[in-house]
Amino acid sequence: MADQNTQIRLASRPDGKPTSGNFTITQAPMPSPRDGQVLIRTQYLSLDPYMRGRMSDAPSYAPPVTVGGLMVGGTVGEVIESNDPGIKPGDVVLAYTGWQRYGVANANTVRTLDPSQVPVTTALGVLGMPGFTAYSGLTQIGRPKPGETVVVAAASGPVGATAGQLARILGARAVGIAGGEEKVAYLREIGFDAAIDHRAADFKSQLAAATPDGIDVYFENVGGHVWDAVLSRLNGFARVPVCGLVAHYNDTALPPGPNRAGALMSAILRKSLTVRGFIQNEFAGTPLMDEFLAKATAWVQDGSLKYREHIVDGLENAPEAFIGMLDGANFGKLIIRVS
Amino acid sequence: MADQNTQIRLASRPDGKPTSGNFTITQAPMPSPRDGQVLIRTQYLSLDPYMRGRMSDAPSYAPPVTVGGLMVGGTVGEVIESNDPGIKPGDVVLAYTGWQRYGVANANTVRTLDPSQVPVTTALGVLGMPGFTAYSGLTQIGRPKPGETVVVAAASGPVGATAGQLARILGARAVGIAGGEEKVAYLREIGFDAAIDHRAADFKSQLAAATPDGIDVYFENVGGHVWDAVLSRLNGFARVPVCGLVAHYNDTALPPGPNRAGALMSAILRKSLTVRGFIQNEFAGTPLMDEFLAKATAWVQDGSLKYREHIVDGLENAPEAFIGMLDGANFGKLIIRVS
Repeated sequence: MADQNTQIRLASRPDGKPTSGNFTITQAPMPSPRDGQVLIRTQYLSLDPYMRGRMSDAPSYAPPVTVGGLMVGGTVGEVIESNDPGIKPGDVVLAYTGWQRYGVANANTVRTLDPSQVPVTTALGVLGMPGFTAYSGLTQIGRPKPGETVVVAAASGPVGATAGQLARILGARAVGIAGGEEKVAYLREIGFDAAIDHRAADFKSQLAAATPDGIDVYFENVGGHVWDAVLSRLNGFARVPVCGLVAHYNDTALPPGPNRAGALMSAILRKSLTVRGFIQNEFAGTPLMDEFLAKATAWVQDGSLKYREHIVDGLENAPEAFIGMLDGANFGKLIIRVS
Repeated sequence: MADQNTQIRLASRPDGKPTSGNFTITQAPMPSPRDGQVLIRTQYLSLDPYMRGRMSDAPSYAPPVTVGGLMVGGTVGEVIESNDPGIKPGDVVLAYTGWQRYGVANANTVRTLDPSQVPVTTALGVLGMPGFTAYSGLTQIGRPKPGETVVVAAASGPVGATAGQLARILGARAVGIAGGEEKVAYLREIGFDAAIDHRAADFKSQLAAATPDGIDVYFENVGGHVWDAVLSRLNGFARVPVCGLVAHYNDTALPPGPNRAGALMSAILRKSLTVRGFIQNEFAGTPLMDEFLAKATAWVQDGSLKYREHIVDGLENAPEAFIGMLDGANFGKLIIRVS
C-alpha cells in the first residue's frame, strides 16, 4: 500500500476562540506532481495569527479556507520528486503547502533555501513572512527617523521582535510591549531600549515612563487595551502601520460601549496621524523583498538581528499549538516540526 | 471721542453645543499699528468649523482661545493705516485678525488681494483655507487616479464642494453627500456625478447605488453615521484624508456602545486602508500653496471651479450664524459682512 498523506483540515468554523473540534486529521492519497511541479515532504509548518482569519468566512483580505478544506500555511520541506529542471530532489525549499505531511507546489512558487547559510526554519520567521512584515511595515510606512521612538506590540513574537530590532538598526529608540515578565526580560536581552508588560496593573504609567518624548511610530499587531494606551501617547504626525489585531481575532460581537470610534478618528485628526493597514504581500513582489533578504540574512549571520523559535513536535499537535498562540501561550516564532 | 473697536470675545467655554451666552460683544479702544504692522478695517469675517475646537480647552492641534479672549478667524479687510513700505492704505488684504471690526497685523502675515481678478471673498473660501484644505488633502493624501471613485462628505460646504470638483478635474468620479434636497440638487448642478442626502431613510442603499465600484478616496470632514456607511464601501487600498469631524465637535461624552473602535481598526487592516488626519497648515508653507493659488484662481475665472457663499450681515450676528453652521444651517461658505 502506498504512503498516505496526513492532513489537517477545517472541520467547522470557530465561534470565537477556535477549539480542537474545529480541526480534523484526515488521511489522503499521496499527491503526485505534474509538469513544472515538485513534491515536498514537509519538515516544518509555520503557524501564524493570520490563519485565524482564514478559518472564518467574515470579509477578509484573502478568501477563507472552505469547511472541509486543507488548512493553509507556509512550510519548509525537502523536495522528494521534481518535474522542474531548476529544482532537484534533496533541495530544501520554502513553500506554501499547508498543514500536511506532503505537498505539491508549482516550482515557480517555491524558494530554494541554503542550509549552510542560516537555519532553514528562519525562512518561516525572521527571514520569512513575519520578518518581511516587520521590514516592509517599518521602512515603507513607519519610516522612523533616527532618535524617534518606536513602540512595538507583541514584541516577543517574530514580527514584533524583528520590528523592534530593525527600529534600532535604523537609529530609533525601540520600546517593546509583551505579556509576562519572561518575555519582557527577553526583549531587554535582544536590545530593546525599554520593555513593558501589558498585563501589569500600572501598564499605562509604565508606558508613559518608557516614552518620555511620546511615540512617533507604533507598530500595531495587537489592538485592544494596548492600542488604547498607546493612542494617548502618540506624537503629532505619528505613523501607525497596522499588520495584525490578534486581540480581536476571536471577537464574536462588537464589545460593549462606550463607542470609542469617534474618539479614535478625533485623535487621528487632532494629531495628524497616519494609520495604515497592510499585508506584506503588497510589497512582496517588489525589489524590497530582495533588499530585505540580503540585509536581514547578513544581520542574522552577524548576530545583530536575533530571533527565537518555539518549536512543537508533531503535525497532530498543530491545532492545540495554534489555539494557544492566539492567547499568547507561545514564546517566539511558533513552528511545528512535522518530520 | 476716538472710534471704538467692536469685538466678539469668548465669554465661557461651551458644554456641548455653543450658545449665544458663550460669546460677548465688547468695545475696545482702536488698535494702533507699530512698525511693520498695518491697521485693517474688517470687511468680511470667515466662520469655519475649526473655531469650535478653539472654544474648548480639550487637547487640539492649536491652543484654545482663552476665556475673555478675542475669537480668532480669517478676515478680508481694507488697510487704513500702514507702517510697512509694501502695503498702502486702500489695499485689500487677507489677514487673520479675528472677530472684530478693526485689527492690527504684521505686514508679513497678510496677503494682498487683487479685486480685479476674483471677488475678494473667495480668499476666505474656494481660494482660501477651505479650498487649500481640499487641494492639499486630495493631491497629497487622497491621490485619486483617473476613473476612481471619490466620495466627499459635507459636499456643499466650501471644503467639500471644492474637493469634489477637484476630484473631477483630476479625472475621478465624484460622489457628494449633503444634508437636504436643496444642497443635493446644488451638488448635481456643479458637476458631481452623483449626490446623496445623508438624512434620507435609505441613505445607505443610495450610497451603495452611487458607488457601484466601491470607494477609493473618502474625503472626511464629518464623521458620525456618514463615516460608518462609507467605511463598508471602501475598496482595498482606499485613502481617507481626515480634515474635520463636525458631527463630533459638540460631543460632551463618548457615545453609547457598542464600541466600534476595534471594528474600525479591523477594516483598516483588512482593506489596507490609509486613514490620515491633516490640517492644511502642514502644506501651507510649501510650494503647493502657490501651485494651488495659480491653478484654482484660473479655474474660478474660467468657471470650472464653482463656489457658493452664504453671507450674513453684521458682526453682531456672527455667534448665531456660527452656532447654526455646526448644525448644517448654512448653505455654502459662511461669511460675515462686517462693513
